[in-house]
Amino acid sequence: MSEAGRKPPARPAARGSIFRVGLLGRGTVGGAFAELLEARADSIERETGLRPELSGVLTRSHGDFDDILERSDLIVELMGGIDPTRDYVLRALSSGRHVVSANKQLLSQHGEEIFDAARSGKVQLRFEGAVAGVVPAIRVMGETLAAAHIERVHGIVNGTTNYILTEMARTGASYEEALAEAQRLGYAEADPTEDVTGKDAAAKMAILARLAFNAAVQLDQVSYEGIERLTADDIEYAKELGLSLKLIGSAERIDGGIAVHVYPAFLYADHPLASVNGAFNAVTIESPAITEITLSGPGAGGIQTASAVLGDVISAMIPPPSLPAPAQDVPVVTDTEFSFYLHLEVADRPGVLAQVAELLGLQGVSIKSVVQKGLGDEARLVMVMHPVLESKFRAAVELISRLDFVREPPRVIRVIEETF
Amino acid sequence: MSEAGRKPPARPAARGSIFRVGLLGRGTVGGAFAELLEARADSIERETGLRPELSGVLTRSHGDFDDILERSDLIVELMGGIDPTRDYVLRALSSGRHVVSANKQLLSQHGEEIFDAARSGKVQLRFEGAVAGVVPAIRVMGETLAAAHIERVHGIVNGTTNYILTEMARTGASYEEALAEAQRLGYAEADPTEDVTGKDAAAKMAILARLAFNAAVQLDQVSYEGIERLTADDIEYAKELGLSLKLIGSAERIDGGIAVHVYPAFLYADHPLASVNGAFNAVTIESPAITEITLSGPGAGGIQTASAVLGDVISAMIPPPSLPAPAQDVPVVTDTEFSFYLHLEVADRPGVLAQVAELLGLQGVSIKSVVQKGLGDEARLVMVMHPVLESKFRAAVELISRLDFVREPPRVIRVIEETF
Repeated sequence: MSEAGRKPPARPAARGSIFRVGLLGRGTVGGAFAELLEARADSIERETGLRPELSGVLTRSHGDFDDILERSDLIVELMGGIDPTRDYVLRALSSGRHVVSANKQLLSQHGEEIFDAARSGKVQLRFEGAVAGVVPAIRVMGETLAAAHIERVHGIVNGTTNYILTEMARTGASYEEALAEAQRLGYAEADPTEDVTGKDAAAKMAILARLAFNAAVQLDQVSYEGIERLTADDIEYAKELGLSLKLIGSAERIDGGIAVHVYPAFLYADHPLASVNGAFNAVTIESPAITEITLSGPGAGGIQTASAVLGDVISAMIPPPSLPAPAQDVPVVTDTEFSFYLHLEVADRPGVLAQVAELLGLQGVSIKSVVQKGLGDEARLVMVMHPVLESKFRAAVELISRLDFVREPPRVIRVIEETF
Repeated sequence: MSEAGRKPPARPAARGSIFRVGLLGRGTVGGAFAELLEARADSIERETGLRPELSGVLTRSHGDFDDILERSDLIVELMGGIDPTRDYVLRALSSGRHVVSANKQLLSQHGEEIFDAARSGKVQLRFEGAVAGVVPAIRVMGETLAAAHIERVHGIVNGTTNYILTEMARTGASYEEALAEAQRLGYAEADPTEDVTGKDAAAKMAILARLAFNAAVQLDQVSYEGIERLTADDIEYAKELGLSLKLIGSAERIDGGIAVHVYPAFLYADHPLASVNGAFNAVTIESPAITEITLSGPGAGGIQTASAVLGDVISAMIPPPSLPAPAQDVPVVTDTEFSFYLHLEVADRPGVLAQVAELLGLQGVSIKSVVQKGLGDEARLVMVMHPVLESKFRAAVELISRLDFVREPPRVIRVIEETF
């Protein structure tokens, strides 16, 4: 076997070396990336032995590409579009610079040319941020599933349309109303054409299909339909039958070839994408060996996409270590706050609830809701508490369990609320 | 900057080099791994330039560890347990062999010692298969989220208990009944103690917490409760309120330290883990920069865990390339089969359904279900078809749209059924 197979490259031992990152574009994602890079530079240096620093920023009005290229080890391309971006990316790759890009249009229309340039330049090209924001579909297909034969990829890869469809289902709004609301909240652009026609999703599915099947799929080979003609009626019908209506991207092997589509579809309730709501994205990857993996998370947003881009930058700096760093000394706290549900079988006598509430109150436990069920000797109290230290709640329950009207050991279960 | 930062290691150019894999343990996962390795060897050689081959297998009755070690570049440890496994793993690492393991007990009890040995030996130690089967939680935390400050990890990391709780909710069965059913189907072992007490999940959460927070969490620092004392009543209460009851592992930063727990909990319906059912596993990772990522898939099963192990082996063979391999020539098929929903606004006259059905039938489109709604001039037909080539269905719809009783352009939406 070769040496490359046996030993992982050693991490650079010297601290203080600088890794120079040139940034093209400083819009929403570019600005978030610049901030995140600075905020995380210490931690990245600790992990990798290299300190990432912005060596230059190219915007519409400032900076010179050749100058930035000269001073960079890696170029982060967040300017979007095809021209002059394609030229910049090709020149960066051919001059031996790694490139990290989130440009789905560029990769879905000129992917092969760009992959070839990276191969010739013996540099890395990473683009997790181009598809589904921080959802790590590209890395998982390329690494975790390196040995799997992927049969099909289903994705909700456009957050704008998923937000609109979710709102239509939730409120009964028309397409136009939901779109206007999405625009008001910043989930849809003033000109939403790319999103609502399915073209944005088609570009992302072309990239996913390229990786899943190793076939040179381009954007113009993806047939796509959007959501503009869906009506509140369609959604109503779906709800009646327990179905979800989603804009789905699909890429699958079929008859010795592959098929890549984007279309609105009804999903049965047990489909892993059926419960993906709001501006979230998700990708389900199916393979005989793994059944399926579903990955979901925020599909867009400056800081989320910037996080995916920064993960790519770090992977390009040094090969990701297989091991965690040596552990730091962090105390493990055992007594923490939870919301609790408390179920008491009681004899229904005057003052029962008052006595229970008093014991809870003495420990500082505050009741969020209480329901009494049943009557007489068959009564029960079902209560949910506001978050409280477990030790205090357990102390209260211990006292409550000794009350003579409590007929069975109290039952306690934690409650987790969505925090977003 | 250092050379390691600039250039990724070149892929070995020579074909035909052998990468020798020694396998410890040939139970369910070990057997599936041996088969998968053989089945995928050609494809792996194409991707990496190295051909993986089993150099030896150690079982209870056959093989000699020292002999296998001598003949291996990498050791896959699927024998489980602590003794003699710990000794074997430490010896493999200190003699310069990469190790891939799915042993959650070993890693959650002796992780630091093993990480140190891998660090000293300058070899890789990978263990994606130890937590949540093929769900790539470990890789995503270590790579995609390398730059993120993780605040909390919530997981459903035990498939047996999730299957039992799902069955209790679905059928109203008692805990004992659902456990018996899980045992009958092979989802639970004859002695289910490790699973139902939460101890298995606690080991996995210790490993996830170690990686998420870089803290040396050990199994004995995780407090855990199981599902043995849950009743059908608890589940009934959850359903009434639209909550799910799950066995949750949680690891979070709190008060300058961290807290790691396993406990049954009610989840609100919009929690990303609320819809994870059956023997599936899922992990939700929360960080300010990314909001959250949720990863889900089959939690166990020989072939699924073997796939995760093989993904680790490939990553150890050569650093995962950032680029896809050069594209193969694969045709893109545009006309494919779908299930369709067809919505027709019609004037309700005798023979309407018959004429629609005839035009569908002429194109070979078979109706799965049909509902007529409304009366007279306000009538509508809502139909779902069996899967059919899109071109045939579109041709039928084109003809149907010309029928004089069809009042508006037909509406067509695809339908996706869960295929498992």
